[in-house]
Amino acid sequence: MKGRVSAYDVAKLAKVSQTTVSRVLNNYPHVRKETRKRVHDAINTLGFSPDEIARSLASKKTNTIGLIVEDISNSFYAETAHIILREAQKYDYEVIIIDAETDENSFERAINTLNGKRVDGIIVASARMDNQKVKEFYDKGFPIIFYNRRIYGIEESHYVEVDNRLGAKIAVNHLVENKHRKIAFISGPTIYSTFYQRFEGYKEALQENGLEYDESLIYKGEVIYEQVFQFALNLMRDKEMPTAFFASTDQMALAIMDAAARSGRHIPYDISIIGFDDIEIASNPYIGLSTISQRKREMAVLTLQKLFSLINKDDSNSEPNKITLEPELIIRKTTGVNNQ
Amino acid sequence: MKGRVSAYDVAKLAKVSQTTVSRVLNNYPHVRKETRKRVHDAINTLGFSPDEIARSLASKKTNTIGLIVEDISNSFYAETAHIILREAQKYDYEVIIIDAETDENSFERAINTLNGKRVDGIIVASARMDNQKVKEFYDKGFPIIFYNRRIYGIEESHYVEVDNRLGAKIAVNHLVENKHRKIAFISGPTIYSTFYQRFEGYKEALQENGLEYDESLIYKGEVIYEQVFQFALNLMRDKEMPTAFFASTDQMALAIMDAAARSGRHIPYDISIIGFDDIEIASNPYIGLSTISQRKREMAVLTLQKLFSLINKDDSNSEPNKITLEPELIIRKTTGVNNQ
Repeated sequence: MKGRVSAYDVAKLAKVSQTTVSRVLNNYPHVRKETRKRVHDAINTLGFSPDEIARSLASKKTNTIGLIVEDISNSFYAETAHIILREAQKYDYEVIIIDAETDENSFERAINTLNGKRVDGIIVASARMDNQKVKEFYDKGFPIIFYNRRIYGIEESHYVEVDNRLGAKIAVNHLVENKHRKIAFISGPTIYSTFYQRFEGYKEALQENGLEYDESLIYKGEVIYEQVFQFALNLMRDKEMPTAFFASTDQMALAIMDAAARSGRHIPYDISIIGFDDIEIASNPYIGLSTISQRKREMAVLTLQKLFSLINKDDSNSEPNKITLEPELIIRKTTGVNNQ
Repeated sequence: MKGRVSAYDVAKLAKVSQTTVSRVLNNYPHVRKETRKRVHDAINTLGFSPDEIARSLASKKTNTIGLIVEDISNSFYAETAHIILREAQKYDYEVIIIDAETDENSFERAINTLNGKRVDGIIVASARMDNQKVKEFYDKGFPIIFYNRRIYGIEESHYVEVDNRLGAKIAVNHLVENKHRKIAFISGPTIYSTFYQRFEGYKEALQENGLEYDESLIYKGEVIYEQVFQFALNLMRDKEMPTAFFASTDQMALAIMDAAARSGRHIPYDISIIGFDDIEIASNPYIGLSTISQRKREMAVLTLQKLFSLINKDDSNSEPNKITLEPELIIRKTTGVNNQ
């Protein structure tokens, strides 16, 4: 057991929240006798004095962390957020989610709001890769960890990501193995590390397979369903249409599937589609989307653990956490052999 | 223009945030000259003195509201949360989301956490209908509004909901019109007003159509994909299986579609399925789920507007807001005529 006096340990042993520990020590009126006893027993068992615990509670910890996402209606964020929220509760932590744009001003505003709410640390799910604002907060020693999307050029930044470049290469190789030679690429803005890396992986895989890069098969715009749908529909109406689509996210793959239905193309006989993320709906039998798994549960759990290490300064070394997980190919029914 | 001095009006006119107004009035260093001028111009235009505005800013407003949901990975909550978050930003408000269980203890803890974060008001998307804890907070005059799920027995409670009973009747009637006489009902726990009302509507519709209520066709358990899937699969493997399923949520309808695929039943020839909510994926052509729309955008926007009225005490009368929207039948491709 660590030497550090911890209300957390008391709370855990007494099976109550830290707030309850605090209430007991401050003789707050509405606490049941039995709860009061459990807390005092726990303090005795751990060999602390109530005063020590009270002092530790007076420290700055709020047992609240912040989570910044770009669009909570995007299933990838919603599903990882849920994992983070429920996992955090096991540590008696509450999570405040902020849904914000990713430009530096919005980012700063979101961080400041969370700071004003006195969170102990922040998880950022979406930031532009050139975001330099975060340096200010690292300089102040504030625990911030990125997951999914990382930033570049800030030495001290912590992140947990999937190998997006490798994931894209695996996706393209899967299509090439199925005899596809004309592969469209649908991406969100490459100001994000995820889309940037996936685009790089796509180009690399084309080159390694001796395929030509064709600008007219590339969408790199906003992640807006209608726009992706329209772009895919236009390509599909062309006689010389690509036989396969690699979508940078499953949400965009759904828009492409929609365009295939609209243009009367049969999946996977006329057209193959592969996504990225493995959101829950991808495995529904009526969707059955082939995709690259981000291993979102591992990513979310790992991010949270690393954040807690930062908050508690548990790490003996002070190296930034830079973690890249391996992606995984999941073949379902939207990809097949090219017959043309 | 109202007599009340409002930093909000100044911020709006000057096109800056209230934080910026505050910074200008407190001679905070990092504010651009031009911004400073815009704020002072706005104060002059509105006929206030800077002192009045400063005093108003010293009031308790934090321009932050809280949103309590049960499971942010559920698309209904994720999609409405996103609408609320983005809509709130137009009012220069930030939203803190808390994902919590719905028992009274968790509810109280969530409200206390948000209170500790000094939010101006709270939106609750999910609470058990017998929750009496909320009365304490209403007694203290704290603005809390329920949407989606309401509570019973608290006179002063504010809510925005859809007419769930009517929605269920519309769903069942649609199935009966398609000659279905054996209709299974899949529901979450009826401790929630949504599920309770939908169950009532289902029973009422059966009675009005002269159909028998059959306990063996009813699932009223936890909203867990695997469990719903298994229940539906068991029914479908029976020779005497129901020809139609009414699922209380679209998420549960997806699990039933999955069971249909697994048992080789063709939708809608062998089996009809109708959901409730109209989450985004329901309209995907490969899903094409018939459903009852909750009109979630209207519900979310209305809830937010009502909360702001409560926060700003705009309502001349002090009647609680009790709003029930009409649901809407959306027929897609999972429901059809019973041929058996």
